Amino acid sequence: MKSENEEHISLPGNEALKRIMERCNLKSRIEKVSLIDGLGRVCAYDIASMNTLPNSLTSRLDGIAIYYHDFENGIPDTSSWKRGVQYDFANTGIAIKKDYDTVIKIEEVEIDKSGNIKILKAPSAKGELTQPAGQKMKKGDVLVKSHTLLTPSHLEILAMGGIDKIDVLQKPVVAIIPTGNELVPVGKPLPLGKNVESNSIMMRTKVVLWGGQPLVYDIVPDDPKKIINTLLDALKKADIIIINGGSSKGTEDYNIKMLGEVGEVLAHEVEHGPGKHTSFTVAYGKPVIGIVGPPIGAEYTVDWYVMPLINKYLFQPTIKPQRLQVVLTKPIVSKRPFDFYVRIIVKYEDGQYKGTPVIGRDKLVVEGLIHANAHLCIPGDVDGYEAGDKVEVELRCPIELITRN
Amino acid sequence: MKSENEEHISLPGNEALKRIMERCNLKSRIEKVSLIDGLGRVCAYDIASMNTLPNSLTSRLDGIAIYYHDFENGIPDTSSWKRGVQYDFANTGIAIKKDYDTVIKIEEVEIDKSGNIKILKAPSAKGELTQPAGQKMKKGDVLVKSHTLLTPSHLEILAMGGIDKIDVLQKPVVAIIPTGNELVPVGKPLPLGKNVESNSIMMRTKVVLWGGQPLVYDIVPDDPKKIINTLLDALKKADIIIINGGSSKGTEDYNIKMLGEVGEVLAHEVEHGPGKHTSFTVAYGKPVIGIVGPPIGAEYTVDWYVMPLINKYLFQPTIKPQRLQVVLTKPIVSKRPFDFYVRIIVKYEDGQYKGTPVIGRDKLVVEGLIHANAHLCIPGDVDGYEAGDKVEVELRCPIELITRN
Repeated sequence: MKSENEEHISLPGNEALKRIMERCNLKSRIEKVSLIDGLGRVCAYDIASMNTLPNSLTSRLDGIAIYYHDFENGIPDTSSWKRGVQYDFANTGIAIKKDYDTVIKIEEVEIDKSGNIKILKAPSAKGELTQPAGQKMKKGDVLVKSHTLLTPSHLEILAMGGIDKIDVLQKPVVAIIPTGNELVPVGKPLPLGKNVESNSIMMRTKVVLWGGQPLVYDIVPDDPKKIINTLLDALKKADIIIINGGSSKGTEDYNIKMLGEVGEVLAHEVEHGPGKHTSFTVAYGKPVIGIVGPPIGAEYTVDWYVMPLINKYLFQPTIKPQRLQVVLTKPIVSKRPFDFYVRIIVKYEDGQYKGTPVIGRDKLVVEGLIHANAHLCIPGDVDGYEAGDKVEVELRCPIELITRN
Repeated sequence: MKSENEEHISLPGNEALKRIMERCNLKSRIEKVSLIDGLGRVCAYDIASMNTLPNSLTSRLDGIAIYYHDFENGIPDTSSWKRGVQYDFANTGIAIKKDYDTVIKIEEVEIDKSGNIKILKAPSAKGELTQPAGQKMKKGDVLVKSHTLLTPSHLEILAMGGIDKIDVLQKPVVAIIPTGNELVPVGKPLPLGKNVESNSIMMRTKVVLWGGQPLVYDIVPDDPKKIINTLLDALKKADIIIINGGSSKGTEDYNIKMLGEVGEVLAHEVEHGPGKHTSFTVAYGKPVIGIVGPPIGAEYTVDWYVMPLINKYLFQPTIKPQRLQVVLTKPIVSKRPFDFYVRIIVKYEDGQYKGTPVIGRDKLVVEGLIHANAHLCIPGDVDGYEAGDKVEVELRCPIELITRN
């Protein structure tokens, strides 16, 4: 809790993230869920099989099950053989009846209308085309390791292992606090000079995609007491807190002061744009990220700074976007001295990937959020790029969607 | 509805898929949902803005709003200026008060303790640092096109446009019918010789990931009447039907006959392994895919044949997995004459990607479903590969997860 005269801390974004990662204490909690609800959850412990599979000698193919000793001297006379005595049918993946020990595949067997069988090829070893008990898994085998993110394949294996309830990490609760006198909720009439509160739906759905549980607050007006009270409430209920808006130097931007009241501000701003006024605060061991109001900056910074916190809580790696070399169709000027990110529309034309920066004023937000399928970082020490320059962009969609256009 | 003596049709998998795509009639239905429930849904129509944004002249930065005409002859004497008369404060993204027409950023303004202001730099044009009404979007502008898969960014833009309810395509209902006398539900005791029904949880969760609505039936025993009745029920309730198991040549594998009773079998099997006994049937204009019992074959074939049907219903492209060149650490022998798919464990070692095929008997399913992060197609006309050969695999996970190991 610093005084009003605290220093103003500006850091590179990754340094600010590193500091808050080190300082905050993200304590994972555990809950039990049905296997059927396990998709996308992270298991809390190693999970071992309750079953031995197969639990008896099983056929690998459709065919007939026989006693191998009948074939030790080649193909025997089968004219008097009876189903259920010398042989029986065997089906793929199904336990072999009685104590037959070997399978001959159905393509090597001829059966006439009266049920007499003729075998075309003898098995070459005892146990051929069978699977012994326990070959897939044994009771006690670890099937899925602690902190695995569960996919459909994991759920299948756990089901095979007889597991129908699992211990998983609880979804971290991510509080989202929209602030600003100028904001009106979606679907309400928009008075002149007001703006729609549109960031929380973007943030809450990203939190869901990342495996968190959003807790969205009603819009908080620019009133120091209300901001503090909401922050304190969120610090009780949530694991990670996003406070959105009020982050700049405007006359009604109180948030950064309020953050200093409830915790320690590790960074008041970061050295990139958009999103320069992103702040990092630790309060009661929890991370509070101040996210800027403009939608593109808000989107960049929740991706960069909130997703890794959720991943840390869930013990998951943060996966970098796919990169692609494109030829620029327009020049871009740097916003020195800071790194600056520009949305890019990548198209595949004439056998190459071409990137058109989304710059200029008209429809910037719509273009940037919807039509741009990539972005480019212009480092602070670069003047900019010319049309025709080859640059490496980060994709916002699978590359396959670009090649199709 | 063919006779018992119908021909046995074997096709390459992509040809079978093409034929069922042409023959089946996937009719999309539309429903209205709250914007907040729109993540991952596909919008049914173009969606136009209800708002003009900004809806009045807005400041682009934090600063002061002024009248440009006061600056036509350079910086005026501001010693007698009063807030609310000659100027007022302006905040980023907020409507400008009164009828001021231009903004000067706060860094160019000095304010002393008694509120007198001094301006360091005159604006260079009328309207500087402002955004006119309608520059972001105008009422009636199409924000999101018909059949767009909605991401958090789309939801943000729609919220800005004042849209709080949207028409989306209903999730296609995908019936999943597990069949087989040998199957026992997960979590029930497993009698000797029985097997856990583990495919439906893999399939239902994949259907959810692909945007469908799973409808999972209880295990149907190998009884022709029960299979037919379940198929007919599913054909009433679902858009796409998966019948799982009973697809081979075993004595209790009735499914393919039953499929011929309810519809037209376009392919009884496909020319690849695993999953050779995948079947394609059109019944009442709906696709019925017969999926094999063994889990790895089941997983391959729902990916290859069910996902594209869901995508077709939802007007979405099917995105190919990322490909990667790896060096094989072990030889693989072909299963001529058909294409054969082998699961591969890719690791990044000594500066290169190395691929180890999952072959041999022990723990094949666990390794193949869980540890394998790629697969390789061995074309039917290739003998196989040697250790050290460079081959191109398809990834089952983001490449970033491999490089980290």
